[in-house]
This record gives sequence, C-alpha cells and structure tokens, in this order.
Amino acid sequence: MSETLIERRARLMGPNVPTFHAEPVHLVRGEGVWLWDASGRRYLDAYNNVPHVGHCHPRVVEAIARQAATLNTHTRYLHTAILDYIERLTATLGHGLSQAIMVCTGSEANDVALRMAQAATGARGLIATDNTYHGNTSAVSQLSTRRPPIGGYPAHVRLVPAPESLTPLGGSPEAQATAFAANVARAIAELEDTGQGFAGFMLCPFFANEGFPTLPRGFLDPTVAVIRRAGGLILADEVQPGFGRLGDAFWGHERLGFAPDVVTLGKPMANGHPVGAVVTRPDIMADFRTAFGYFNTFGGNPVSAAAALATLDVLEEEGLVANARDVGAHLLARLRALRHPLLAEARGAGLFLGAEFVHPDGSPATGFAERLVEGLRLRGILTGRIGRYMNTLKIRPPLPFSRENADLLVETLDDLLARTEEPA
Amino acid sequence: MSETLIERRARLMGPNVPTFHAEPVHLVRGEGVWLWDASGRRYLDAYNNVPHVGHCHPRVVEAIARQAATLNTHTRYLHTAILDYIERLTATLGHGLSQAIMVCTGSEANDVALRMAQAATGARGLIATDNTYHGNTSAVSQLSTRRPPIGGYPAHVRLVPAPESLTPLGGSPEAQATAFAANVARAIAELEDTGQGFAGFMLCPFFANEGFPTLPRGFLDPTVAVIRRAGGLILADEVQPGFGRLGDAFWGHERLGFAPDVVTLGKPMANGHPVGAVVTRPDIMADFRTAFGYFNTFGGNPVSAAAALATLDVLEEEGLVANARDVGAHLLARLRALRHPLLAEARGAGLFLGAEFVHPDGSPATGFAERLVEGLRLRGILTGRIGRYMNTLKIRPPLPFSRENADLLVETLDDLLARTEEPA
Repeated sequence: MSETLIERRARLMGPNVPTFHAEPVHLVRGEGVWLWDASGRRYLDAYNNVPHVGHCHPRVVEAIARQAATLNTHTRYLHTAILDYIERLTATLGHGLSQAIMVCTGSEANDVALRMAQAATGARGLIATDNTYHGNTSAVSQLSTRRPPIGGYPAHVRLVPAPESLTPLGGSPEAQATAFAANVARAIAELEDTGQGFAGFMLCPFFANEGFPTLPRGFLDPTVAVIRRAGGLILADEVQPGFGRLGDAFWGHERLGFAPDVVTLGKPMANGHPVGAVVTRPDIMADFRTAFGYFNTFGGNPVSAAAALATLDVLEEEGLVANARDVGAHLLARLRALRHPLLAEARGAGLFLGAEFVHPDGSPATGFAERLVEGLRLRGILTGRIGRYMNTLKIRPPLPFSRENADLLVETLDDLLARTEEPA
Repeated sequence: MSETLIERRARLMGPNVPTFHAEPVHLVRGEGVWLWDASGRRYLDAYNNVPHVGHCHPRVVEAIARQAATLNTHTRYLHTAILDYIERLTATLGHGLSQAIMVCTGSEANDVALRMAQAATGARGLIATDNTYHGNTSAVSQLSTRRPPIGGYPAHVRLVPAPESLTPLGGSPEAQATAFAANVARAIAELEDTGQGFAGFMLCPFFANEGFPTLPRGFLDPTVAVIRRAGGLILADEVQPGFGRLGDAFWGHERLGFAPDVVTLGKPMANGHPVGAVVTRPDIMADFRTAFGYFNTFGGNPVSAAAALATLDVLEEEGLVANARDVGAHLLARLRALRHPLLAEARGAGLFLGAEFVHPDGSPATGFAERLVEGLRLRGILTGRIGRYMNTLKIRPPLPFSRENADLLVETLDDLLARTEEPA
C-alpha cells in the first residue's frame, strides 16, 4: 500500500506536528476567502487571519514578485522600502510609537519586545495571562501557557488569571477590571520580592487566545496604572487583533483605550510573507539598541517591506477595515440570533467573532464545539476553536469576507446546530 | 536642508542599527554577482552569502511568484511542497538526519536546536566557542559572543576558546584538537558540577565567525568523543558553510568529518526568502515534539518550500557546488600568491575565503583590513571582515562567482595593497 500524505508527513516531520481537523485538509489553491483541496473541493475560509487581505491577493503577489526580481538584500545596506513602510506603519500608531525593528515572525517580534522591557527597566520579571500564546522561541514560550516551555516556567515569569466572559473574575465590569489589576499588582510584588524586579506585562489587547471576552473600553486602565506605578512596560501583542481586524479600530489597544509602550506585529502584516515588527518609542528603542547589537538578516529586507507595503495599500484601497466593521456587525447579529440549548454567547468585534458553547450544568461543551468545527469542515467551511476550554467556535476570516460569505456561514451553522441538538 | 537617508533611518529605526562601510551603500538592484546603487554604480558582490545562487535568480523568483499566486498557507493543513523539500534536503545528509522542522530564520532554527538538546538529554547546559554568533533570539544570543546577551551570560552557558590559525592553541594540529577537546571536557564538568548538566555543544563546523582557521579533517574527533561520553548532543550550525559553499562538500560537518545530532540551516537556504530549518534524527525529533508543541505559522509554508526547492534545483542544474570548488581553488591560489608585508595568510575553502593581516610585531592589523574593505568598496567590490580581531578580509560571494570575477577581485586587491603599503 502506498504511503499516505499523513504517513509521509510523520516520516519527514516527526510525531505531534499540529494539524487542523480529524482529517486534515490538503489544500492546493487559494483566492480571496476561498480555498480548494486536492480533490477540487472548495472551502470558505472563515478561520485564517494570515491571508489578511485575501488569499493570494494579486497586488501583494505582484509586489513580492517585482521586488524579488529587482533586489533582495539586508539592512546593513541602505534601502528606502523599509523606511517607507515604518513611516506608514507608525503613522497609524499614537503614543510616541515612532520607531520600529522589522523581523520575520511574531515570535521574533515578541522575543525582542521582552528584551526591550528588560533593557529599558534593568529588571527581568515578566507577566502574562495564564491562558495565552505569544510565540515559539525559547524566551517567548516561557509566557505561552498553551505550549508550556521546555524546562518549565522560570523564576522571572508570573502568570495572572485571564479575563473570561462567562466565568467573570468579579461582578460588574469595573469589579472585574479591579480584580485583574489586583492580580497584576500581586505578581509584580512577587517579582520584586524575589529580586527579579518587574520589566513588563505582555498581553494581547483583544485577549484573543483567552477566548476574547467582552470587555468594556477602559478595562485595562487600573492595570495600566499599576504597571506605570511599578515602572514596568506594557507590551501589546497585536499579532491577532491588529491591522483593522476588529473593524472599529486599527489596533486592539486603541479599541480598549490604553497606551502601550511596545507593540508587536506578525501574521497578517504582509499577507503571509514572513514579516513581523516591534514598534516602540525612541527612548525604549535607544535603551534596547544600546544594550544589544540586534541584527536580523531577513528582517525588513526589500521584498518583505514591499509585501507589507502592498498589504497596507490593499487594506486602504479596498476599505477592508470598514468591511470588517460592517460585515462583522452583520455576522455577529446573525450569530446572536441563533438558538441552540448549548449556545451560551456570541461575541467579538469586527471579523474576529466567536460562539461559546456550554452544557446546561455550566460546564464547557468542548466536544460539541469540536464536532461543530468538524461538521462545518465537512460542509465546506473552515473554522476553529479557542478559549480556556476550547469550547468557543472561532471565526476569524480574511478581511474581504462579504455579507454573502457571512450568511453562508451562519445558515450552514444554523442547519448544523439543528441536527446536532444532543451532544453524543 | 533635507533629511539624508541615514538620518531618516535613525529617525525611524533608532540608533546603533548596524551598517556596512563608512558610507553605507544604498543598493537598488541586484543580478547574479552584481549589485547597483542608487547612482547607477555597479558593485561586484564578493561578500553576500544569502543570495546563494545569485541575486534575484529568475528561477527562484519565478517559483516564489508562482506559488504566492497559487496558495500560501501553513502546516496545520497538508501540502506536498514541504514534504518534497524535506525529502530532497535530508537526502543530502547522512547520520540518520531524516526529519526536519522548517522555520523562518537561522536564529529560529538554532533556538529550536538548543531545546532539542535539552529535551533529548533532560539537561540544560550548553557550550559554544568564545568568539561566535549563532543568532538573535534571547536564548540563542546567550551563546553569541559577538552580540552579548541582555542580562549577561546565564549559568547554563559555557564558552570554550575558539580555534585560531595564527595563534594556535597548541603546536601540531593533533595537539590543537586535543586542547580543544580538553577545554570542552572542562566546560562539561563545570556544567555537571553546578547542576546544569550538559545538553549540547553548538558550533559552526567551519568556525566561520571565528575566522575559519585551517583545521585538518578529524579536528573535532577528540571533542566529539568527549561529547558522546558525556551524553550531550552536537548541534552543527550550518547556516554559513552549508549548501555547498565549501566546494568539496555539501556540508561543513562532512568536510570536517564528524556526525552531528542536529543540523541547523538559514540564510542561503532559499536565496533570501526567509527560510530556515532544523534537521535531526527521529529519536531526537520525537523527544522535542513530545516535550514541546512547536508550531511556526510561516515556517515551511508553500511559498517558502517552493523558494527552497528552486534554490536546490539551481544549485544542482548550474553545478554551483563544483563552481565553488573550482573558482574557490583558483581564487585561493591567487590570494596566496599576493605579496604584502602585512598579509600573513590566505585561507578558506570553496567560496568562503579570507586573507588575514598582521603587523610585523604579530599584532592584528585590524585598521589595515578595515581600510582594505573600504578601498575595495570605493573600487566597486563589496567584501567584509571577520575573526576575533576583525583583521581577516572575508570573501564569501554568491556561488555563481566566476574566474573572471575572482581575477577582478584579486587584481583590484593587489593594486590596492601596492598603494597601501604602510598602515596610517
């Protein structure tokens, strides 16, 4: 018998290589919000955020092809594309965030951001939430509870309880915000007591991996006050919420209404080309660049900068942030109108939406959510799951997602829910 | 007065961003071994190893453009390109190195390799040489003496004296090899005594950043025996010597004649597209993948795999490894025939060559080497410097470098040397 693709993968890539779906999809082509598998079957992509302006957007492809044919070198020589990009990027950010380092991945960006906090404060201690993922390097994985680090969590890391929509830390939004800040204050005190000191708190301003609970604007204000008093930095990992996905704001921290000291970027930044960035204020950049002679061979090369510039162009010219806002609002309203005994809440912002499933006894309906994702895949729609209990259906499509795409998703989901009344 | 490019760079990228040359070159176009600056001036590229098969090679550009227009997604879905690539890549390696993880940079690759050693051994301690660079992540920079880490070197890292051509550790090659192994044994004992244990020794099998001293085949045999006895892993950072640059072998470890447990790859792998890889044996891969749920969003995506495959195709079809061997031998012979009071030694392999300059009193002629690099740049040839004292002219061009290119380089250097007799 001939070797299957899965067997060949295990032979060449090893065991435990993560895949999506019980029977992983073998994709061969993509265009806009659509993907095709090897058998010619078409899928609506309601999951992938990396192809931010749509799979294989011709404008981005052309920018990559043109620049790759012209010059691809590194930043030890001068080139204008990286400068044009950083100028465009920082113009979308306030709070004095005017300088950037371009890297190749969100993980590299977060790895730099942690060191910026350490260089700027002279302290070592870092805080993250207890249900998150910030990347795959050794240092960043020490904050990433979804993939615990090799060797365990080190002494300079503290994790605080993540906010949750359905199991709130406290009663009112104000009480929740206060409780979150109190936990951060406690973590800072522990870091200071153990001699690590406090360098910074890295968080996703949408708490995306935490299941993006519905949080009021200003939720982080008490936490930010605690961090400022302690002299630490706020590192906003905008890899997931950034670049307009949330519809009503270009950045997650803008929507939540706080001022980060460092912003990190990755996945959607160049529509799939390996590009990331760290943006910060000149004072912090100077501290980092004085402490460490950072150079990234591929980071900010002319092709990467061209791909990132073209992605910004398409975002603007096709009005994709407004599309995320409008189609997102329509989709959220339709998700909220769905009725199913296990559907506890539909929530989110722009084109980052979720539907959380809970059993009548209040326990998370994880298996049910998993069957929904599998059911949607069998009906030609790609989605995923998220949250502490992986019981929230995650909808995070490319931004050109249309009302018709949204309707197809909701109607398929509605039909599936009607046939999946009782969890097996 | 309008802002210069350098000023704009400092405004947007911050201070201390590394550049080459007293007056950095503003490049706008590349083709083969040639680069053009914004004024239209042409440079012979005798330095850059990232454009391994030549700047903007049409075959690689076309592969990137075609795949970017077809599909670019991640390894949670299935795709054949990454499997085709890993199969081709591992076929060039022996020693049971049959499985790989694709990442985006050599730094990411080395960051994974360190954790593989830790996962496979259950120990934490790492060893590197005292004059090297393995990458820019937090964990990898802890081995990188050229850019010391923020916070200093941690307790689990030990550095051993790098071999040097002109200031040998001992007399005969055998004595040097024994001394090197003894230093490694001492470092292992220290790591074990302090409770860190010994996980692995990461080294460049060409000792490229160390100034690539001339070492006999088998130089590392005593060291390898010490490492094997201690149960640690040998991590070969092939980012610089790999993919045939050394001419007489496809890999640096092959040329030196030892069997690594993990091989890491980066810069030249996809001719400038951000791609890296970690190759290892199935037992080590299983240990790593059991200990840590590694996923890299951009790593091994279809475009990256296509770029890496096309680079291998060009290497083979254009016979570039043989070209590195033949042109490299010609160039080395001509460098060795140069006469100048400060020229102490020309050395290297394939198209990775150097000329070391030393004052009559035996002190390194660092400033002289720097002036040579600047002089060559003014005459339209890009080179660099390397070694502990940065007194070795580094010649490491794209592999399509021809005999004519080599002659132009040597003749320009000869003329420059004749006019630069006395160091200022």
